[in-house]
Amino acid sequence: MTNQLRADGTLRHLLTLESLARTDIERLLDRAQTFVRPLGAKPPVSTALAGITVANLFTEPSTRTRVSFELAAKRLGADVVNLEVQLSSRVKGESMLDTVYTLQSLHVDVMVIRDPEAGVPDLVAANVAPHVSVLSAGEAHVSHPTQGLLDALTVRQHKKRFEKLGIAIVGDIRHSRVARSAYHVFRTLGVPDLRIVAPESLLPAAKEFAGCARHTTLEAGIKDVDVVMMLRIQKERMGQVDLPDADRYFSMYGLTPERLEHARPDAIVMHPQPMNRGIEIASDVADGKQSVIRDQVRNGVAVRMAVLAEVVGSRAVTVEGGR
Amino acid sequence: MTNQLRADGTLRHLLTLESLARTDIERLLDRAQTFVRPLGAKPPVSTALAGITVANLFTEPSTRTRVSFELAAKRLGADVVNLEVQLSSRVKGESMLDTVYTLQSLHVDVMVIRDPEAGVPDLVAANVAPHVSVLSAGEAHVSHPTQGLLDALTVRQHKKRFEKLGIAIVGDIRHSRVARSAYHVFRTLGVPDLRIVAPESLLPAAKEFAGCARHTTLEAGIKDVDVVMMLRIQKERMGQVDLPDADRYFSMYGLTPERLEHARPDAIVMHPQPMNRGIEIASDVADGKQSVIRDQVRNGVAVRMAVLAEVVGSRAVTVEGGR
Amino acid sequence: MTNQLRADGTLRHLLTLESLARTDIERLLDRAQTFVRPLGAKPPVSTALAGITVANLFTEPSTRTRVSFELAAKRLGADVVNLEVQLSSRVKGESMLDTVYTLQSLHVDVMVIRDPEAGVPDLVAANVAPHVSVLSAGEAHVSHPTQGLLDALTVRQHKKRFEKLGIAIVGDIRHSRVARSAYHVFRTLGVPDLRIVAPESLLPAAKEFAGCARHTTLEAGIKDVDVVMMLRIQKERMGQVDLPDADRYFSMYGLTPERLEHARPDAIVMHPQPMNRGIEIASDVADGKQSVIRDQVRNGVAVRMAVLAEVVGSRAVTVEGGR
Repeated sequence: MTNQLRADGTLRHLLTLESLARTDIERLLDRAQTFVRPLGAKPPVSTALAGITVANLFTEPSTRTRVSFELAAKRLGADVVNLEVQLSSRVKGESMLDTVYTLQSLHVDVMVIRDPEAGVPDLVAANVAPHVSVLSAGEAHVSHPTQGLLDALTVRQHKKRFEKLGIAIVGDIRHSRVARSAYHVFRTLGVPDLRIVAPESLLPAAKEFAGCARHTTLEAGIKDVDVVMMLRIQKERMGQVDLPDADRYFSMYGLTPERLEHARPDAIVMHPQPMNRGIEIASDVADGKQSVIRDQVRNGVAVRMAVLAEVVGSRAVTVEGGR
Repeated sequence: MTNQLRADGTLRHLLTLESLARTDIERLLDRAQTFVRPLGAKPPVSTALAGITVANLFTEPSTRTRVSFELAAKRLGADVVNLEVQLSSRVKGESMLDTVYTLQSLHVDVMVIRDPEAGVPDLVAANVAPHVSVLSAGEAHVSHPTQGLLDALTVRQHKKRFEKLGIAIVGDIRHSRVARSAYHVFRTLGVPDLRIVAPESLLPAAKEFAGCARHTTLEAGIKDVDVVMMLRIQKERMGQVDLPDADRYFSMYGLTPERLEHARPDAIVMHPQPMNRGIEIASDVADGKQSVIRDQVRNGVAVRMAVLAEVVGSRAVTVEGGR
Repeated sequence: MTNQLRADGTLRHLLTLESLARTDIERLLDRAQTFVRPLGAKPPVSTALAGITVANLFTEPSTRTRVSFELAAKRLGADVVNLEVQLSSRVKGESMLDTVYTLQSLHVDVMVIRDPEAGVPDLVAANVAPHVSVLSAGEAHVSHPTQGLLDALTVRQHKKRFEKLGIAIVGDIRHSRVARSAYHVFRTLGVPDLRIVAPESLLPAAKEFAGCARHTTLEAGIKDVDVVMMLRIQKERMGQVDLPDADRYFSMYGLTPERLEHARPDAIVMHPQPMNRGIEIASDVADGKQSVIRDQVRNGVAVRMAVLAEVVGSRAVTVEGGR
């Protein structure tokens, strides 16, 4: 695994949250918080990344995440180029590296990489020149580190401290990079009561998610928690062996206002989006007053600005904003 | 229907021209005119929209219109992001709104929306936060308001006043958003002689286009008019029941130099593009000296700059240019 | 053929290298050299093209070339829009010109055009307004002029002078625009020993590549040359009549470290990318110390900056950079 930190302790790459120390994560969250503005306020802008080039290199489509990274980079003054490339599977690793060397030779400074195959961001990070940074924007089922950071920032804004929290992650844990990054960040930040909730067939292997309580019923799984983190269920998996169809899934695991009463009265509800309303979450909950889903999106761009600013190593990011 | 105007009478959204007053339209045309430059001159640029983010959210492809909005926004100094999204039809409204809420949380200020389904721009406008503006870039067969404005601006540049004009709209009126927006803007601006010309099967329902003379022959339809506005015919409709094939369509409704002589000698010819040369219009006419088709394109970016500047509420847009 | 030069001798369009004089090419290379920075250094940036709009109009996909042009334009301060358009073949010329007139009316100053059909860049150049410039980014099998310039710049950086060089172009010469532009530029620059190397079925017609020695074996073809320029072989052509399959091709024409010893010890190896590693080139060579493939990419953006700066006619391009 490529070292994500520079000798001076600052972040060079962001591939996973697994190996980051609590102080690293807190520093990034603190910096991200400086980029947060209320809805309707002007977003912060700066020229900290003027002359820097950021490339979004996506081999699977993800409009929302791409736009979030694109705006984060542009608001810091960077040049941004978007590439959606199809790589033939037989020579995928080679093609990816040749594309990366090309970008590097074009003086791209930061590569934001999303790929459905495990190992690709790390492969790239292991091969780029010393001045280039690699940010994972989603790696197979393995990792989605900026999502983990934005989830942590959202929880911190609403709950202040992590030391006494109960957090339940609900849904397709087994296939979810969002769940894995959430697990890593919340463990590192000291959340004592972390639970995963799913039908048996969507729970992860026994050795994963160590220290988490496992639940197969939603009511017990979210009982008295402070945070309910819903995951997107892939509709393609619905109705397969061991998995109920959409209606039945909703009747068992869909988060409704009634079910949400099992959590603490001040519990917040999160979802990484896109949502399947009426399957994993009822619209009344998604749009209800306990939902912080839109805060997550707003925090996403702030987190990405913080990460970009740190990996580029611009010490003094001046920020304007507020209207 | 969402109110398009703010309390102070300025434009907040632009979804349709139907409800706009003559003074609103004239104010937008006047402002657009300040952004018009002759071919070969530098386009006007300003920093009026610096710090503002514009998202082009297109669910059907339209490269020309997207580029026109993109350049309008960039030349005013805005950040622009392009999204081409495919929304599954079953949950389209919900997915669209979730995408819109995401953009809003990313501090997008203006959403430019193009969608093949009626009602989507209005749905979005009814749900965004108060500081967000929605501009329709084409809504089903219903409305294409910036096209209507650029058509009006083009006529005004060549004919000065609307009060004595004869204007014929020719082609697939029934399915055309361009025709409907042209109808609304020209009615509001006081055009006395407004005609629609089409084969019976492409004329609209009787209650639509009130006050327009209806013609099924081109020669009578454009007799002595000042403006001939051709529409694109969808080739997929050709050869269907009640509709002639391409060659026969051209022989009956194609605008040739000979047919154009039925209009006034100084009549101008317009087309929203893309053209089917040899089907609805002869190349000799499209490229002839009565054609103002390229003026329409140039005016399109000026109109979009005017609309963007007004909805963002920047009162003093400084303009440079001319080389 | 449209004249590529203005009356004052400066470049207006860049469609082919065939008709350019040695002094024109050397002037472009000299200017490009001022934009070259070592890997890890900040790329040069300037505001020479502020207010200028560059459109990348690609009808066949080419992410790398598009990004190279996009970054070249952005680093000179231009606005850039990307269009990937599909034109129906029946009316292709007309559709292309209508798209081009649209861009022109949107005040696009430079059109970068890539098209799989011969003649399209010239067709466009013959029809645009006098202030518009057209740059070919690859035309069928005919021409790829910025590639030719970057190849020449790369050779010049490593070999200083062209007058005594031996250069072998190896691979699918017959279908290659890269080979044709290389041929033109190296002939003009005075390379005395220029060879083409390919299986019989991939050699060009006899009247083409006049003055080049023709070889059908790699070892003889690259004997004692200073530069080995490998081409990409289209895998779709593999295994067809008169052409060996991939493994056999590699065994006969693949550039391996052993084969490379037939060239001069200080020979450089070039490839326009994307590479088929293990088919036309061994990875050991592609990544070896004689390879200058990444220099080619870096020089590509410098060459495109030089061409953009010259066609826009900005005499004094101020350049910053170096970190």
